Order: sequence, then C-alpha cells, then structure tokens
Amino acid sequence: MTQQRYDRDAVRAILDRVREEGRSALTAPEGRTVAEAYGIDTPKEGLAETADAAVALATEVGYPVVMKIVSPDILHKTEAGGVLVGIGDDAGAAAAFASIVDNARAYDADARVTGVQVQRMLSGGHEVIVGAVTDPAFGKVVAFGLGGVLVEVLKDVTFRLAPTDAETARSMVDGIAAAEILRGVRGAAPANRDLLASVIQRVSDLVNDFPELSEVDLNPVLATEDSAVAVDVRVIVDPAAAVRPTAFTQEEILASMNRIMRPASIAVIGASAEAGKIGNSVMRNLVDGGYRGEIYPINPKAAEILERKAFASICDVPGDVDVAVFAIPAKFVAKALDEAGRKGVAGAILIPSGFGETGNHELQEEVVEVARRHGVRVLGPNIYGYYYTPQRLSATFCTPYDVRGGVALSSQSGGIGMAILGFSRSTEMGVSAIVGVGNKADIDEDDLLTFFEHDDDTRLIAMHLEDLKDGRAFAETAKRVSARKPVIVLKAGRTDQGAKAASSHTGALAGNDKVYDDILRQSGVIRAPGLGDMLEYARGVPLLPTPTGENVVIITGAGGSGVLLSDACVDNDLTLMSIPPDLDEAFRAYIPPFGAAGNPVDITGGEPPSTYRNTIALGLSDPRIHALILGYWHTIVTPPMVFAELVVDVVQEFRAKGVHKPVVASLSGDVEVEEASEHLYRHGIVAYPYTTEKPVAVLGAKYRWARAAGHVTGG
Amino acid sequence: MTQQRYDRDAVRAILDRVREEGRSALTAPEGRTVAEAYGIDTPKEGLAETADAAVALATEVGYPVVMKIVSPDILHKTEAGGVLVGIGDDAGAAAAFASIVDNARAYDADARVTGVQVQRMLSGGHEVIVGAVTDPAFGKVVAFGLGGVLVEVLKDVTFRLAPTDAETARSMVDGIAAAEILRGVRGAAPANRDLLASVIQRVSDLVNDFPELSEVDLNPVLATEDSAVAVDVRVIVDPAAAVRPTAFTQEEILASMNRIMRPASIAVIGASAEAGKIGNSVMRNLVDGGYRGEIYPINPKAAEILERKAFASICDVPGDVDVAVFAIPAKFVAKALDEAGRKGVAGAILIPSGFGETGNHELQEEVVEVARRHGVRVLGPNIYGYYYTPQRLSATFCTPYDVRGGVALSSQSGGIGMAILGFSRSTEMGVSAIVGVGNKADIDEDDLLTFFEHDDDTRLIAMHLEDLKDGRAFAETAKRVSARKPVIVLKAGRTDQGAKAASSHTGALAGNDKVYDDILRQSGVIRAPGLGDMLEYARGVPLLPTPTGENVVIITGAGGSGVLLSDACVDNDLTLMSIPPDLDEAFRAYIPPFGAAGNPVDITGGEPPSTYRNTIALGLSDPRIHALILGYWHTIVTPPMVFAELVVDVVQEFRAKGVHKPVVASLSGDVEVEEASEHLYRHGIVAYPYTTEKPVAVLGAKYRWARAAGHVTGG
Repeated sequence: MTQQRYDRDAVRAILDRVREEGRSALTAPEGRTVAEAYGIDTPKEGLAETADAAVALATEVGYPVVMKIVSPDILHKTEAGGVLVGIGDDAGAAAAFASIVDNARAYDADARVTGVQVQRMLSGGHEVIVGAVTDPAFGKVVAFGLGGVLVEVLKDVTFRLAPTDAETARSMVDGIAAAEILRGVRGAAPANRDLLASVIQRVSDLVNDFPELSEVDLNPVLATEDSAVAVDVRVIVDPAAAVRPTAFTQEEILASMNRIMRPASIAVIGASAEAGKIGNSVMRNLVDGGYRGEIYPINPKAAEILERKAFASICDVPGDVDVAVFAIPAKFVAKALDEAGRKGVAGAILIPSGFGETGNHELQEEVVEVARRHGVRVLGPNIYGYYYTPQRLSATFCTPYDVRGGVALSSQSGGIGMAILGFSRSTEMGVSAIVGVGNKADIDEDDLLTFFEHDDDTRLIAMHLEDLKDGRAFAETAKRVSARKPVIVLKAGRTDQGAKAASSHTGALAGNDKVYDDILRQSGVIRAPGLGDMLEYARGVPLLPTPTGENVVIITGAGGSGVLLSDACVDNDLTLMSIPPDLDEAFRAYIPPFGAAGNPVDITGGEPPSTYRNTIALGLSDPRIHALILGYWHTIVTPPMVFAELVVDVVQEFRAKGVHKPVVASLSGDVEVEEASEHLYRHGIVAYPYTTEKPVAVLGAKYRWARAAGHVTGG
Repeated sequence: MTQQRYDRDAVRAILDRVREEGRSALTAPEGRTVAEAYGIDTPKEGLAETADAAVALATEVGYPVVMKIVSPDILHKTEAGGVLVGIGDDAGAAAAFASIVDNARAYDADARVTGVQVQRMLSGGHEVIVGAVTDPAFGKVVAFGLGGVLVEVLKDVTFRLAPTDAETARSMVDGIAAAEILRGVRGAAPANRDLLASVIQRVSDLVNDFPELSEVDLNPVLATEDSAVAVDVRVIVDPAAAVRPTAFTQEEILASMNRIMRPASIAVIGASAEAGKIGNSVMRNLVDGGYRGEIYPINPKAAEILERKAFASICDVPGDVDVAVFAIPAKFVAKALDEAGRKGVAGAILIPSGFGETGNHELQEEVVEVARRHGVRVLGPNIYGYYYTPQRLSATFCTPYDVRGGVALSSQSGGIGMAILGFSRSTEMGVSAIVGVGNKADIDEDDLLTFFEHDDDTRLIAMHLEDLKDGRAFAETAKRVSARKPVIVLKAGRTDQGAKAASSHTGALAGNDKVYDDILRQSGVIRAPGLGDMLEYARGVPLLPTPTGENVVIITGAGGSGVLLSDACVDNDLTLMSIPPDLDEAFRAYIPPFGAAGNPVDITGGEPPSTYRNTIALGLSDPRIHALILGYWHTIVTPPMVFAELVVDVVQEFRAKGVHKPVVASLSGDVEVEEASEHLYRHGIVAYPYTTEKPVAVLGAKYRWARAAGHVTGG
C-alpha cells in the first residue's frame, strides 16, 4: 500500500450521507470528491446553481467545457437531455444552463435539480479504464484496461486482488495486450505508466479502506505524459460488499487436517457386510487398501463386519476416533454427525448425496452447523471419499490405490475424481492423495493446500475446481504454497463469461473466467487448459528438475520435429536459446556438415547413437543451457530402445555429477517408440510418442511454476 | 470481380513512366491517381508549384489542409521537414509552402522539387487499412485491418487470396477481431461496410490487373457512414511480383499420379540383396507388403535379388515400367533418371538425400530438369518413400503397412512420416496412403490432393507441411477437394512471424502464419494445431457421420464432465443447443428429479444403463438435435463395457433406421474405461478415456469441415 495520506474523513462523510439517504450510487460530484480525497485527479469543475454561476465557473475551469445535470432523481442524464458538450464561450454556457434545466424539467417534472456540473472538457491522451469490483469469489478486485470502444469489443482488461502493491499495479499497466500503445507507438506521446499504476493503487486503497464500495469505475481516465485524470467517476455502494467469509487460522486448519489425513482410527458410519452397499465398499477398501489404524464399523444391526467388531453408535467405540466416514442416507447424517462430534472426531467424510447439489441447501447448512458446534471439519458432502497413500488409506467406495508418490490431487466432481484414479493407475502415477471435495460445505481447496504445503509426502498439488467458496483465501494460500510446490488448477466452467452482455463497466467486464485467470496466475498457479493437460502436468512436472534459467535447446534427429518443437516452444512461452558461437562450434563438432547447429540443433536422421549421446552430453554439461528438448527419429542405426537407454544413461551420468536439468523428448517412429517413451518416462525424462506438443507443454508448465516461484533467473 | 469500369490506361501510363524512370515506388500523387482510376476515393488535393497556387488549391479543397513535399528524391518526407498539418487559412498556406520548400532544400540541396501537395485534412470516421501484398507462397493477397496503432500492436488484420469476390471481401470486413467497432458501438457512427468491402475488391482487382504491383497500401482509409477515403496510398512495383509458377493441368496431374499411385510395375534402382541397405529394404517391403505388380530390381552387379531377375539398367527391363524407386546415392541420380525417362516411367521416387536440404540446389535443379525433359514426375528427393494400401504398395525403406482404410496422409519431413506410421499402426487407423514429399522438387501437396480427390479409396486427406511451393495452386485445389473430402493440414513453422518488426505496412503485417491461417480457412481446410491433433483428427473425422446442423447436445452421467465438455464446446466453436421446452420435458422423463435437463443433460451418477440408453435414443431420434457428446462416469451400476456396448447398440439401431449423427464420448473412470473407449471407437463412436477435450476437438474438426463444405444449415 502506498504511504499516501488520504482524506478518509471526506469519503466517510459522503458514504454516511449516501447511507442516510438510502442511495446505492454516488452522484458525479460525490464520486469526484471521493476520487480527489484519494489523490486521483479529476477535471477542473464545479456545481453551478444559476446561469451566471455557470458562466463564471466555465471561465474559471477554462473553455471548452462539458455541462451536465445534477439531480438525485435523474440517472440517465443523456436520455434526459442533461448533457451538453463542447461549449466554447460565455454565451454558450449561459444558454446551455437554461437548456439543460429545461430539458430536465421536461423529462421529469418532479425531479429535484441540484444544479448543473460545469467541467473542463479534456481531449488527447490515452483513454484507459481503472476500476474495482467486488467479485463473488475473490472479493475486492482491481481492473485496468484500455478505454473507449476497445475495452468493450476486445475485452483487453486485466484484474488483480486488491490491495495491490506498486509492482503489481505496474504489472497491470504493462500486462494488457495493447500495453505497447501506452508506451507511445508510431510517434504518439506515451502515457505516464507510473502515474497510471498509482491511480490503480489509489483505487485499490480506497476499496480496501471502504469495503462497502462494491464498485468503483474511473472511465475514462485520460492519461498523458504528465497527468492521469479521471473524467468520469462512478461509485456504487453495497453494505453486503463489505462482508468477508470467516476463515480458520493456518494452525486450526493444520490441526484438523493432520488428524483427518493421518488418522489413527476411523469409524465407518453405516458400515455394511452386504456387498454392493457403499458402507461395505468403504469397509473393504479400508481393509484391502492396507490401512493400519483402527477401523470401527458403526451399524446398530450388526455384531461384526469384515471380522471387526461393530458398534451401534460411534459413541460406543472404546478409544478415540479421528475420522468418521458417513455411508448413510443424507437424512440421517445430522444426527449421526452430532454423535460423532460428541465423540470428538476431527473430520466427517460425507459420502452421501442429497444435499446442496439436489437443492437441499437447508439440510446441508444444518449439517455444517452441527459440525461447527463440535469443531468437526466436514469433507463433502456428495463425494467418493479420499485417498492418502502414505497411510495406505482408501476411504472411498471406489477401488484402493497404492502407487505412492508425490502428487496430491483433488476434484470437485466425482466423475473427474474417477478419471484421476483411472489415469493414475494406467500411468502408474505416484500419488500422495486423491480427495473429493464435492459440495465443499466446509473443507475446501485452501484447507487441502495448507495441509499439502506441510506434507513432506506431497511434491505437487493438482486441483479440479468449478468455483471457489473463498477465492481470496485460496489465492493467498496458493501464493504461499506455490512458492514451495507447484500448484496446478483445472478451472472448469469458462462459458458463463460469454453470457455477460457487452458493456464498458468494470463490473460487466469482470467476466468470471478472466478474473480467475489473472488471479490464479498472480498466485503462481499453473492453470491447465483441460483435464488431459492437468493429468499430464501432474504426472510430468514433479519428475523434471527445476530449471534455473530460460535457455532451452532443442536437439533433434528429425528436422521436421525440430520445427514443430519450436512452434510448441512459442506456444508455451519457452525461449529458444540463441546459441553463442563457441557453443555452436562445439555442437558442430558432433554433427554432420549438412546438419544444422543453431537452435534447434539438427543432428539429421540416420546418425548413430554416439551423435545423440555427444550432443545431449554437451547440452547437459554447458552451464549456459538450462533445459533440453529431444526430438527422436526412428532409424535402423539408432533404434528406439537404444535411443531411450542412451538418454537415460547420459542423463543419469550427469545427475550423478550434480547436473539436474529438465529433459523432455518427442519420439517419432514406428510402434517401438511407445515402449521407448515409457522407459524414458520411468527414468524422469518426460517423453511421448507421436506428439511434439505434449512434452513441451509439460516443460512449459514446469517453467511457469519455476518462474513464479523465483527459481528462474535471467534469459 | 466487380463489374466496375476501371481506367486501366491511366494506371498503365503511370507504371510505364515508373518503369522508364527505373523507380520501384510510386509518388503520392501517382498513387492517388492509381487509386482514383480504380474508383477509390482519395482526399481532395492538388499539386502546387507556387505559394499562390497552394493558397488557391487550399481554398478549393477546403481548409484545414495538409501540405507535403513532392520530390522523387525525398522518400522520408517527415524527416525532411516536408509535411505540415492543420493549416487553417490562406496566410498559413502561403507560409507553409515556403517553409516546406526551404526545409527540403536544407535537407537535400540537390533534391528535385516537383512541388507541394495540398490535401484536404480529414478527421473523424474509422481508421482502417486496406492493402495487397505479393506473398512468396500465395502470390497476390489482400489485407484488411483496423488502422492506427491498433493494427500494429494487436495485429488485428485478415488476409484473402486476390482476386476476391464480394462475399469474401465482406467476410474480411466482418472477420477481424474488432469488427464490432465498425458497426458503431456505444453510439459511435458505423462505417459503411459495403463501401469498405468494395475498396477491398477494387484493390484486389487492381493487383490482379497489374501483377507487377508488388504492394499496395491504403493506410489509413477513413471510413464513415457514407464514405471511405484512402488518405495515403503507397504503391510498390516489382516486375518479379508478376511471375506465377507454371502449373500442370488437372488432367496432366491425374494421368501421372494414377500411374504413380497404382503402378503396374516398379523398378528399384539400386536394389540390393544385402540386408541393411536401403535398396534391400525397399525390395523387401514391396515383396513383403504384398504388391502384386511387376517388381524389377536394377543392379548391374546382381543377377537376381529376392528371387527376382535383376537388370543392369532400367532400359533392359522387357516390359513397361510405371515407377522407378531410386535407392542410390544422390550423385548417381541424374544419370539413372535419364535412363528411367527414356524408359518412359511416370514417376521417379527419389529416396536419397543430399540435394537441396544439404544446400546442393544445383543437383536438385538438374534432376528436375532431366525429369521435365522426359515428362517424368519426381517425388522427393529426401523421402522415406510412399505407401498406397489399395495396391498393397509399400515403396519405402520403413516397414510395410497394410491396414486399409480411407485416410491419406503426407508429410514433408521423414520424422513426421514415421510418427504417422507408428500412430497408424498403434491405433489400427485405416489408411489409403502415406506419402513423403520431402524437398518437393516437383510433386507437391496439390498434386497429391488432386489424386486423392478422385481416389475412391480415400475419404480424408491429412498433410504435414512446412511451406508451400505454390500456395495459390494448393489453396485452389484444397478449396475444390475440401468441398468433397475433409482436408486436414498441420502447418509447421509458425515462429518466423515473431521475427518481423512491428510496422504498419501491409507487407510487414503479412506475417507468414497469419496469411497461411486465413487462406487455409478460406480454402475449407481444417488446420490442426499440432501433430497429435492432426493424427487424432485423421483417425476420428472419417468415422463420424457428417452433421447437418449446429445443435449439439451433451448427455452426461457426471456433472463435472458436463462442465468441462461445455468448455470444450466453446473452445471448438460448437453450439450447445438451447433445448426447447417439449424436448426438455422429454429428457426429464428419463432422468432423476434432481438431475438437470437443459444442456448438458445431466442424468446424474449412479444411473442404470437404461437411463443412458433412453436419453441417447432420444438424442438420436429427435431431428432437431444434430450431434451428441456423451460423458460417462464409471459406476458399479453401469460399468464401462456395459456403457460402451449399450451405446454401440443404440447408435447402430438408429443407423439401421437411417439416422446418422456424429456421437463422441469422454469416459471418466478406472482403467476399464480404456477398453470401453476402444470398443466405442472401433464402432464409429469417437471415444477417449481421461479427457474431455479430445472427443470434442475431433467433433469440432468434423464441424469445421462440414460447415466449409456446406453441409451444415441453420443454427
């Protein structure tokens, strides 16, 4: 936040008046006062109550002027004939005053006319928009974009969480697609980008100080080399905008989540001996999965289930219970949860559906209330359950999963959870956890992130989500966590963006998806474009060492693959190293004279294994190179498995020497390249057959994370 | 072309003068005359040779005026102080004349000063750019974009082949990203789009009539509701721009290609009995592949190869030879080709490398010359060969391929060819042909397209290419062929676009890739974003029936998949049908009360097979629905293979009744969904596990083709 002295009292006074008068919008002069109180320049202007006063004012602010009706009863000034522009002299100002007041009376005879606003008419400079909205997920969000019709048509606007720091505000000014225009192209004078960044920060401070401001819209702001003037200021007030969801502290979250993810004992409420029942599947998966804690079946009608003593109520269980898994119909949950709460469980895993997702919101709220009363955290309802492999825990009605590894995944939807499970099993992806969050009545992604942040068994977190209950908490947590571990998000539901009608107001521009996109990026999150991508990133990113610089080199046996791999680098914001002459010469020593050094390094088809080996070794050994992309071309001289083995060999040789660089590979060839790709993948080289896009996309995801987490320096 | 009467003589006179004077650029007044000759308005203006004349002219055209130096020796007028704007009265005009002439003299004492151009200074309206360039691949191309700094920064510009028809010109005006701006947003006056389209057509006609015009740049054109005035006209002349590559006629192409693809006899020049040699691999593949025509090994040192009599020279072969496959070093090719030519072969398949790709352009040109002399078409050099499964023909050093089917593929690169082969074998893709075109010394993609167009065994063509020798011939052929069969293109090498410096000239805007992108689309080609996509489109698109309308319906067991499938529809320009009330009710009859009708139709998880069956049957039977996307969620109630079999069953039932709609599916679940997806795919339902993106992308590709080919009506 800036160290600016703001006149908060002036703003408070206006907001008090607005509240007293039961209004939700500030008048233009009020908006101007609010802006000025936060050091945002507005055009010279004043309120005239008579024609003479209008002439005097116009002379004072300087011709040409714009004159506008000021009336609490007239919202659509133009429609009411209440706006006249380009008034150039005293006679014009006097006539305009009369005309505006007459028009207003004709439009609404009962309208209270406060007077006529006389404003210096500005021209020239760059037209931009600066605003703030209250997003349903993220709360206060600031917006910046080019003004005029462009912002409407091209939606070239960017968002950040408020409050913003100076660097973030500056990143907004430089972050729109048309940013170059503000630097002054083709001889046009540039805008003062520092001044624009300061306007963004001031708006951010304003909505942060007065959270009841649901929307602030400076549109347009005219920006020149030495000024940034907010020509129109629109401010909307809504007391509801000031409400922030309550949040648990990190300590509280960890205390509960540690017991939930690493329970010493689990009760299965609704455990059943009957195959096909969910309460049977859950019991079976806990047992078959190899969970080594206590398992207590809860079922009033059974003495024993799967050779374990059953209890009529969780309250009858002799020892402590950390987690209660609910496998009973929705309508019985509240009562059973009350018992579990009294027993002191840390978490209630609500598998049943029939809550919010079917419209039964009251039941869901009731359940959360019961849980809150007992300090129980609720996972779900409407979920498949959860897996945590370090505990060999499969608390789910699906099938057990036991390939341990560093990837933690969560999904909002059960179907996506099943796709995660199937993909993991098919690719033998090492997983620490798979968690269904379902309706997210309580536990949500930021609780999980906080647990995984401190979980040494988790190296990467991948989350499928459709919405965020508290986007701000998520963004803050993700920013913290992603500095340590990659966080991948598949945000589903981008289509509602299109539904919003074209409009120039910040509020309407804050299409759901663009806000998510900007803020997830700001939080260091890697956004996956689709389900397949999320899964491939999750599998591949943790295998790749973290790059320390931007210099990527392609070494390829097939020139054609080299071109496609270069295209993929562009698509994934990767930088093809511009090879210095000595390095170029070093590569040339290994490749045929008609091969191409430069980048891609084209070793040409038909080369023996030694050419691949030598060039890859050079790429790994030269400290100026930070990552390698390999293109393999199937030949008799270097068959697929020979290639795969030599690559594994040389990469491991360098890893043993402490050289850790990400290496990915695209294999072109007959079906043997599938086995070769698998061999490479198993040894930490992310490799795919028949595609140049996928290996580069995974490397690109790694880079996006590495940059955001501050590991990559220079270019 | 418009029926406009153009003053071609006026243009010819100017171009003659320009040629005589050895210039390559027209002066501003010349450019204006050329534009006016083609009915393109320019600002009122004139050339003044004295200050008095300047004043008279300014009065005539109307103040304010712009005045500019006219000198054949001064190219950079502004730099020379030769441009003054906003001159408002007679005194100003007189002073400006003196000042401009003085400045010019000071800038270059030897400059010949023709006079000073006095031009009405226009303002208001929309600033656009209309131009034409001579593209190295496509020849004359017209461009349209928003003018001003926007066109520089956002590169919002679109291209079409010249000459354009009225509809195409109009599609350019409406086809830029910011097209809405020209319709007049937020109360701004619209531009006259018909008038702009007519300017595009006039420029198109101009460069078509005078192909030596290498570049025409109307920048800006000021467009209002009733005018479109080209403020600046820049014209560049280059006699080389008029040269068009010679082309074969369709009949010539077909005559040769039919013999090449369906040869009765093949000679292998450099056939060898020694395993590991290319001449041995080619022989072996021809034999093992099951080719039933005559095979003649040519080798002066062998009597017999693979039990076939060998000949010292192709001239010694007793019967006719249709195709000669060359498996000899580059340096021997020309001589052997001469013999093959004398023997009367239709095609020479040049496997060897060592030609243009290694810098040996003369040798390549020599070979082409030999071939031309004999009327032989050349495939390659620097290729793996080619496959044509209807003839069981594997004329390649790779391995045979025999899964017959309707997909013809070609690749410019050998590596990509191997990826095609491997993918085909792995997925059992039915293929008619795989052809390597390599250096494209002669036969290129439009020759192949022409053959495949008439080949009843080919239903879809997929081509990997890095450049086009004659983009215009390709575009024209592709437009014709794609009206009958889908043409998929993977255009590699998009990165050179970034290399061009920012500039507002049409020439610099014609970044290679954007021109390719627009013209491929104009030709009805489906452009694949990557190698994997090209292969998946090739495999899936021919299996799907052609949709007849835009109404796509998603039926899903997993709400989460439904959201992701909807996102994928947006990404692929598919239209989710807005379900009419009666249809909504009909769906509701089959799904649980808490399921969601609308679109996606969410049948909810845990439903029995009958729910999937009933809703899918409804989707197939209702004629208002044109395509189905299925989302499957693995449950015990409807296991993966049960789902797959019921879908195949119901789809086949409707196909038997003559209902052919494309159906694609995304399967979420444990590993059993992989087998289920394969079962679906084998039965014409394009299905994938663990991804919502891929099935929708293939459907999107089918739609793009179906729309371009005119099969899809309404929305």
